[in-house]
Amino acid sequence: MSNRRVTLSTIDGIPLVRPGDDVTAVLLDALTASGDRLADGDILVIAQKIFSKAQDRYASLSEVSPSEQAQKLALEIDKDPRIVELILSEANEVVRHRPGVLIVEHKLGFVMANAGIDASNVAEGGESDDRVLLLPVDPDGDCARVRAEIQERAGVDVAVIMNDSVGRAWRSGTVGIAIGIAGLPGIIDLRGENDLFDRPLMTSIVGIADELAAAASVLQGQADEGAPAVIIRGYTAPGAPTTAQVLVRDKAEDLFR
Amino acid sequence: MSNRRVTLSTIDGIPLVRPGDDVTAVLLDALTASGDRLADGDILVIAQKIFSKAQDRYASLSEVSPSEQAQKLALEIDKDPRIVELILSEANEVVRHRPGVLIVEHKLGFVMANAGIDASNVAEGGESDDRVLLLPVDPDGDCARVRAEIQERAGVDVAVIMNDSVGRAWRSGTVGIAIGIAGLPGIIDLRGENDLFDRPLMTSIVGIADELAAAASVLQGQADEGAPAVIIRGYTAPGAPTTAQVLVRDKAEDLFR
Repeated sequence: MSNRRVTLSTIDGIPLVRPGDDVTAVLLDALTASGDRLADGDILVIAQKIFSKAQDRYASLSEVSPSEQAQKLALEIDKDPRIVELILSEANEVVRHRPGVLIVEHKLGFVMANAGIDASNVAEGGESDDRVLLLPVDPDGDCARVRAEIQERAGVDVAVIMNDSVGRAWRSGTVGIAIGIAGLPGIIDLRGENDLFDRPLMTSIVGIADELAAAASVLQGQADEGAPAVIIRGYTAPGAPTTAQVLVRDKAEDLFR
Repeated sequence: MSNRRVTLSTIDGIPLVRPGDDVTAVLLDALTASGDRLADGDILVIAQKIFSKAQDRYASLSEVSPSEQAQKLALEIDKDPRIVELILSEANEVVRHRPGVLIVEHKLGFVMANAGIDASNVAEGGESDDRVLLLPVDPDGDCARVRAEIQERAGVDVAVIMNDSVGRAWRSGTVGIAIGIAGLPGIIDLRGENDLFDRPLMTSIVGIADELAAAASVLQGQADEGAPAVIIRGYTAPGAPTTAQVLVRDKAEDLFR
């Protein structure tokens, strides 16, 4: 078994990303400027936020007209009705709500607070505080595209994870999770494998892409040091590549809504 | 800002741990044998399982007498009543159950399936399959003790995390979490800090010890490659050390039970 030493390193010098920017070019340029380079087998973990910015997934609160449903819910949970409208428009259904909290199933299938809508690090100096940032429409597709572009432009075969930070039902603090994947499996299914004593394993599906997303998140930081991309080197996940949808729990197995 | 490059490496050659073993000695001996050494500032992530084994937290199913409550619940969820008895004896309360699934609040406060009781990698060759392994009684205390012993015996100042793998409410696959901590903060509270544009951060409590636990879990593996201890080097978490209890969500904030 390999996978004995893994290195995580940030890609430094990534500029603020603006609508229309080519994320792959931004990353490759930053690597060139810093003298670093990608290698075959690297796992590139990229923060959701820079994809959303490049895709102009901004919404201006001043342009949102809350529906009656959003207004009613906003009153109940003491949130801005325009934010509630945006959250509902991004969601399949409301999972839980209470004052200050709105947890939904995002259209992508992920259960998250506020549909992953972000109001931090969004506006730039001089601009209004009126903008928020929605998740990309197709994170798996974005990862596949970046992966193909890196193959094409830099000639290296990397895997790509798009990560975001989310809260948990029973634990404090956010952790990184994978919302888009290309070139690696989202889970490792050990069912059928044996343990150290040659007995079938019990707990046997590992959310490997989420673990890698969390590992990268350690270096990405949340505040002003912002390092949106991390290279994971030295780890190869066994199994066939999947999308991030394998990490969405089947509704039939969901005991908590 | 430092924290730009972090390495994760397994401690190789750790033998099977037996009741009464000194976990610190086992780890330091393995390090010496492999020519590696710990350094000040390292974060040592150790799998719960080897603590439980060293502390003889085994339970023999043949010696368990299920209560009436356990028998009734076992029938309902189609599990071995002796396992259900053990789970209930480790738990403060049942959070959810259905056929094949029993999610409880462990006495330590953590919400987990099966109270973290493990039936994999427990028995050794020739022994019966009758044993399961409970969580340690005081993971934070265990981490503090190992940390102090390493300081004393090896003269280095490390942080220690005890990790376990758990399932999630809405996502498939297990991820590593921290159930014991010494010498580092369990969360990073960024409230009051500003974002890139000098505005107060919104999502601002990071479950850093869980992210580090998940990162280590990538290398620990679940199956026969078993690598129970991982050294994280190059990362310093800001803030004062805490126990793992800071990662337990307040019941008042729990919307899911």
